[in-house]
Amino acid sequence: MIPRYSRPDMVAIWSPETRFRIWFEIEAHACDAMAALGVIPKENAEAVWKAKDVEFDTARIDEIEAVTKHDVIAFLTHLAEHVGSDEARFVHQGMTSSDVLDTCLNVQLTRAADLLIADVEKLLAALKKRAYEHKDTVRIGRSHGIHAEPTTMGLTFARFYAEMDRNLRRLRVAREEIATGAISGAVGTFANIDPRVEEHVCKMLGLIPEPISTQVIPRDRHAAFFSALAIVASSIENIAVEVRHMQRTEVLEAEEFFSKGQKGSSAMPHKRNPVLSENLTGLARLVRMAVIPALENVALWHERDISHSSVERNIGPDATVTLDFALGRLTGLIENLVVYPENMMRNMNKFRGLVMSQRVLLALTQAGVSREDSYRLVQRNAMKVWEQGADFKTELLADPEVTAALSPAEIEEKFDLGYHTKHVDTIFARVFGA
Amino acid sequence: MIPRYSRPDMVAIWSPETRFRIWFEIEAHACDAMAALGVIPKENAEAVWKAKDVEFDTARIDEIEAVTKHDVIAFLTHLAEHVGSDEARFVHQGMTSSDVLDTCLNVQLTRAADLLIADVEKLLAALKKRAYEHKDTVRIGRSHGIHAEPTTMGLTFARFYAEMDRNLRRLRVAREEIATGAISGAVGTFANIDPRVEEHVCKMLGLIPEPISTQVIPRDRHAAFFSALAIVASSIENIAVEVRHMQRTEVLEAEEFFSKGQKGSSAMPHKRNPVLSENLTGLARLVRMAVIPALENVALWHERDISHSSVERNIGPDATVTLDFALGRLTGLIENLVVYPENMMRNMNKFRGLVMSQRVLLALTQAGVSREDSYRLVQRNAMKVWEQGADFKTELLADPEVTAALSPAEIEEKFDLGYHTKHVDTIFARVFGA
Amino acid sequence: MIPRYSRPDMVAIWSPETRFRIWFEIEAHACDAMAALGVIPKENAEAVWKAKDVEFDTARIDEIEAVTKHDVIAFLTHLAEHVGSDEARFVHQGMTSSDVLDTCLNVQLTRAADLLIADVEKLLAALKKRAYEHKDTVRIGRSHGIHAEPTTMGLTFARFYAEMDRNLRRLRVAREEIATGAISGAVGTFANIDPRVEEHVCKMLGLIPEPISTQVIPRDRHAAFFSALAIVASSIENIAVEVRHMQRTEVLEAEEFFSKGQKGSSAMPHKRNPVLSENLTGLARLVRMAVIPALENVALWHERDISHSSVERNIGPDATVTLDFALGRLTGLIENLVVYPENMMRNMNKFRGLVMSQRVLLALTQAGVSREDSYRLVQRNAMKVWEQGADFKTELLADPEVTAALSPAEIEEKFDLGYHTKHVDTIFARVFGA
Amino acid sequence: MIPRYSRPDMVAIWSPETRFRIWFEIEAHACDAMAALGVIPKENAEAVWKAKDVEFDTARIDEIEAVTKHDVIAFLTHLAEHVGSDEARFVHQGMTSSDVLDTCLNVQLTRAADLLIADVEKLLAALKKRAYEHKDTVRIGRSHGIHAEPTTMGLTFARFYAEMDRNLRRLRVAREEIATGAISGAVGTFANIDPRVEEHVCKMLGLIPEPISTQVIPRDRHAAFFSALAIVASSIENIAVEVRHMQRTEVLEAEEFFSKGQKGSSAMPHKRNPVLSENLTGLARLVRMAVIPALENVALWHERDISHSSVERNIGPDATVTLDFALGRLTGLIENLVVYPENMMRNMNKFRGLVMSQRVLLALTQAGVSREDSYRLVQRNAMKVWEQGADFKTELLADPEVTAALSPAEIEEKFDLGYHTKHVDTIFARVFGA
Repeated sequence: MIPRYSRPDMVAIWSPETRFRIWFEIEAHACDAMAALGVIPKENAEAVWKAKDVEFDTARIDEIEAVTKHDVIAFLTHLAEHVGSDEARFVHQGMTSSDVLDTCLNVQLTRAADLLIADVEKLLAALKKRAYEHKDTVRIGRSHGIHAEPTTMGLTFARFYAEMDRNLRRLRVAREEIATGAISGAVGTFANIDPRVEEHVCKMLGLIPEPISTQVIPRDRHAAFFSALAIVASSIENIAVEVRHMQRTEVLEAEEFFSKGQKGSSAMPHKRNPVLSENLTGLARLVRMAVIPALENVALWHERDISHSSVERNIGPDATVTLDFALGRLTGLIENLVVYPENMMRNMNKFRGLVMSQRVLLALTQAGVSREDSYRLVQRNAMKVWEQGADFKTELLADPEVTAALSPAEIEEKFDLGYHTKHVDTIFARVFGA
Repeated sequence: MIPRYSRPDMVAIWSPETRFRIWFEIEAHACDAMAALGVIPKENAEAVWKAKDVEFDTARIDEIEAVTKHDVIAFLTHLAEHVGSDEARFVHQGMTSSDVLDTCLNVQLTRAADLLIADVEKLLAALKKRAYEHKDTVRIGRSHGIHAEPTTMGLTFARFYAEMDRNLRRLRVAREEIATGAISGAVGTFANIDPRVEEHVCKMLGLIPEPISTQVIPRDRHAAFFSALAIVASSIENIAVEVRHMQRTEVLEAEEFFSKGQKGSSAMPHKRNPVLSENLTGLARLVRMAVIPALENVALWHERDISHSSVERNIGPDATVTLDFALGRLTGLIENLVVYPENMMRNMNKFRGLVMSQRVLLALTQAGVSREDSYRLVQRNAMKVWEQGADFKTELLADPEVTAALSPAEIEEKFDLGYHTKHVDTIFARVFGA
Repeated sequence: MIPRYSRPDMVAIWSPETRFRIWFEIEAHACDAMAALGVIPKENAEAVWKAKDVEFDTARIDEIEAVTKHDVIAFLTHLAEHVGSDEARFVHQGMTSSDVLDTCLNVQLTRAADLLIADVEKLLAALKKRAYEHKDTVRIGRSHGIHAEPTTMGLTFARFYAEMDRNLRRLRVAREEIATGAISGAVGTFANIDPRVEEHVCKMLGLIPEPISTQVIPRDRHAAFFSALAIVASSIENIAVEVRHMQRTEVLEAEEFFSKGQKGSSAMPHKRNPVLSENLTGLARLVRMAVIPALENVALWHERDISHSSVERNIGPDATVTLDFALGRLTGLIENLVVYPENMMRNMNKFRGLVMSQRVLLALTQAGVSREDSYRLVQRNAMKVWEQGADFKTELLADPEVTAALSPAEIEEKFDLGYHTKHVDTIFARVFGA
Repeated sequence: MIPRYSRPDMVAIWSPETRFRIWFEIEAHACDAMAALGVIPKENAEAVWKAKDVEFDTARIDEIEAVTKHDVIAFLTHLAEHVGSDEARFVHQGMTSSDVLDTCLNVQLTRAADLLIADVEKLLAALKKRAYEHKDTVRIGRSHGIHAEPTTMGLTFARFYAEMDRNLRRLRVAREEIATGAISGAVGTFANIDPRVEEHVCKMLGLIPEPISTQVIPRDRHAAFFSALAIVASSIENIAVEVRHMQRTEVLEAEEFFSKGQKGSSAMPHKRNPVLSENLTGLARLVRMAVIPALENVALWHERDISHSSVERNIGPDATVTLDFALGRLTGLIENLVVYPENMMRNMNKFRGLVMSQRVLLALTQAGVSREDSYRLVQRNAMKVWEQGADFKTELLADPEVTAALSPAEIEEKFDLGYHTKHVDTIFARVFGA
């Protein structure tokens, strides 16, 4: 995570201020629950809320931590400075630091998921808009980088939409995976704290109590969370690579938006680089790299070891901030992508009708010409196009063996682009609903 | 995937015979649908089913492929040898090889998921049985590898159960991710084939039609599938590492089952190695390594490139076969794990009551002793245990400053293990249901 | 590793026959050394060599292993069947199975490295040949997929040569990393075997004695080995991606070789897919995926655990066989790559001289025109090219403000391609030597 | 990279100030070379050095970049503010931004390598010291976590030394891989700049000119660099895992240093957690995760795309800062590790002589007892130890069948630890030199 690739809302989730705020809420709600259970006096629980609107002083907490060497104790000490050390004396009773830290991390990841879900929803809106705009903009479909059959730009946007829609579902599942909390003590037995405290705190924070924890919340949940992020990142790369291909000098079917005043890299007007999509390609790699350490974090020793902690202090903010930034950047890119339908048509016609050769072949066969003869007929006319730059349809119309089997109208019909786009509405209905 | 770490049912899914069988079904169902639509004659569609019970000859197909250099064409040629080349002439009409290959791959992955789901269900049954068996078997909980507070072996099994239960859900989602088919032609436009053919084929094969495909089914689905497998593998490692720790010479709280006649590695009876769990640790790494290439496969060029293919030819069988084997091995390991409750108790008592020092500290505080004095009292008695091997409770009972605050009965009560196990039933109810 | 992507020489290294042969050599050389030290009788050592030319019976060994459940013991039992059980009774004395297994693995990896080194040498020869062949074949250099300045196809081959030459060095270092053996006993203390046995065996097998081992040879060596393979694989991908770009329909500056009779995917002659380079892209992912598990294998527990074993049984053969196949495929691809110089020139001229605009800009500045004015002059002529398809040089020659600063000859000179290729020889000398 | 896991020297390498300082040096040296070649006036080259001791104003450069949207141009503009815009007008002539950026990155990575090399040298000194200190401190060697045969703590330190010594060599090779620079223009042809400028700049910065570059320095070099870091990280994990095992409550053969005043996590004196080694385990995962994106960065499109850039902006600082911190932390940990020789002896004797059973077995055989009988004799005495807590040697001495074959002195001799340590000096000589 570096400022260049960050947006403030996601960064804020990972700030010390947010962290202390969440810690406060966990402790305060826990006091409420303990008071309700008669474990601590009601007035002490109420007193904690005096700090409700306090902006905790990060520098002061750091100062205390320098002495205590313990972040949660430092915070509690600082909290007592606001609440009064006598009133605060029941705060954290029966709890372990991990109860606070692990529940807090999941609150942060849940909020991060909320932002990412909103990001994808915005991206989906952009993709849908562009899909309908270019529903009928014909371009050549390519397999292996080689012209295959016609498709439409709308279908390209639609498939990105469908993929991102799956990612939306994955992010929602990921959010659910991580939206748990635990206040269960040193090894998760609730020896020193009533399970109803956990229930109350989780409820107030919008979490589900972790059914069984062991000082820590089990890390398969976090592995699932980061895996989901990695898949979203790979889909971003998928779209980015398409844009980079479209913007290539020889293809130029689309370009990232260039503002009026913006200079290309030089005096050359063609020198407009798809730097946003290239950047997204790199950012995807960064998000993905969190997966392996997240998986390695699952196998902790016995009830917990702390090897996961340094990993999560990094990948927690890094992967979510980078993905949030990437989704935002991609949405802008899609919204503003300049599409060149005429270039699409010119590219498709580069081989003057040859992309239709398969249809002609099929038609000849269906008209009763043997498979071998059909192939020979198509091939000899195709070769004239390929080698001499002839026009395929013209050649076919002039070939008596072809016209013996197919009427001019039938030949003409084979070059109708509508043949290829006739199911676009069907597909759109599948993707976007009727 | 090597025979040593393979089981026949999963291997069979990836055999050439199975693959050809699935190809046959795709082609035959497609013919039925085309016949129903009036695109091909009904009798030709029916004729294809003559090969219904044929065992396709893999060697013969290889022989043809050596000539045609194309696997699907080789298969179709061989199919025609069974059906009759005239009757078979409409087979595959309007379809591309990828329609067959990609739909087949997803059928295979779906079946693999079914086996893996059944594997996890068996593992869950074993974990549940052992959890109830050892619900009250007290052992010391450990954080950082260091004794913390008592827990029970049943809770250990229960948390593995809960984790694998989450994996069961993940595998079910993964199965859903991958249970789609596509018969949509060269770039996914259905130019040469009616979408209803795809619908029929998918229905007959238990798949959902891919809403939008582009010769290939989008690879974010496969990335999600292999990610789920990697998480399951990491959970296996989690359990394996616990067993390896328990079986350490100095700990010896459990051992992998050794059959009566089986020799350890030598004359030394203590030399029984946790080789199954060590092996599972390695297998987990193998399953996990499929994740990155699966994620890299998502960004194909335009409507498709074939870079994903060689990857999937390997990780498809490798990851599923290895995970299936690992789950089976782990289930056996859990079912037969030899648990040593008396060693658990002896380990816990290694520091003669010291694990209870926190409770004593808390009790002193609650009895009105200041925090500093309480700490000093506990510490000086703890030190006698630590340095001279004394018994903690005995020392406390002999310390007048302690007994001034706490009665012998109160001190005694602090050493009651029931304090730590009082919520085991609550947790079991959460994990296994009431 | 699947047959489709395998070559016999590398596969043979990993066959059971080769493994047993290496085991035999380790045991026989160890007997020689022990006899020389007077530890075992000379005649028993000599007797072992009776099996020198025996083809060990894999099926028989498997049969024995089914009983003994131990591969090395099964082999030794079978060896005794050849040597005579009395003569063979000193074989393996004082050794552990790992002495044999780990030393054998390193022999296999060393041989694999030898094949890979030879593979890269062949690839280098091919790259060098093509580099000189196309030293002066001008093509447009591209950054961000966008035309930048002219370069030559020879420089493209030369940079792949330089990269593969670095890989050659890396493979040699990797070979050195792995060319060690260990015969040091259960925990590496040589308690039961003299270090001179290790020295002799290593010398005879072309290995260096591992300075300090612990039943196993330390796994950082293997991690380094597989890391080197992964870098080579990434370089293969780098070349493959260049070919895939060159073969794109719109670019078509080169094509993978198509044999005369070979049909493209259809009647369309342009439909020749770069399937070899796409396949190489996928194979690179497969080789790379061995890196993470190899790194995870480094941290074994104490003197050894066996978690690395299942990993290496897979990635050992898989990564080396796949990389060997990929290097062979790439060499053929490079040797036969069809290069289209005229298409390169046509692509470069797509924007009719615009790629020279930077030189013109610089020349104007150097002729005393202010930077702002120079930019304006270049820009207004460039725009005519860009928007109206004019020729850049023609426009400049017709612009009085330009010709006021630059003579026609000076303008003409700016379009000299030789300006861009003048240092090609210098670079070739750097890459290939004077 | 987060402050908690960072050290200032490495962080400084990646600061904007350092970056601008390196940019300045590249530009100034390039001017010198151009002046020497007569391409620009000597006085202009000299003028640039006026900024030699300037502390560049990062805020000011950011301000300019906000307008120009280009970091190198912003810097050059700011440089001109110091040098004088007229004097500075030849700065950067014929160069591209990448010439500056890529050369700068390699200077930073080279300096980072220098720090890491020094880190490893310090670690080696610590390991060597502890190895000699505990050369003869006997402890039990363990395979599979199970007692095997005696070894010494010195050998444990010695094998970590040998492994880190290999890492030292790897880091030196990695430094060499990355110590290149390039000033070769837009596509690497030196069209606008003389190769001798590159030579001079590289010489002054301690770099080798990249033999062939293409706007960028080829990324296989960086992949090799980050791969080396990942191996070092895995070795750190290897050592960390050993410490964590030694500090386990039941083992307690060593502990991370606890300062006098430092409290464990509670009143329990045994509760000293190996948090440094657990942290190192996590940090190793963080360093390793840079490998895959670094490998993915190798295959750039044509002469360059910019996808690698965002990756390196992160992993460049992150991986080097984290590894530097980890090496420093590990060195302190090793220097201060508290070793408990008496616990080692107690652990080894847990099974009262059983670890010697293999030697007794061997001795019986060599004394002429059949293998089967020897095994039976050892086994029946071993079982008394295992099941009744007897002492192995005592039992053997009391077994007439045993004493019939072996004299009491011979039996006694089998329990001599010197048997296992007799080659420690040999191994030390191999590892540390004679």
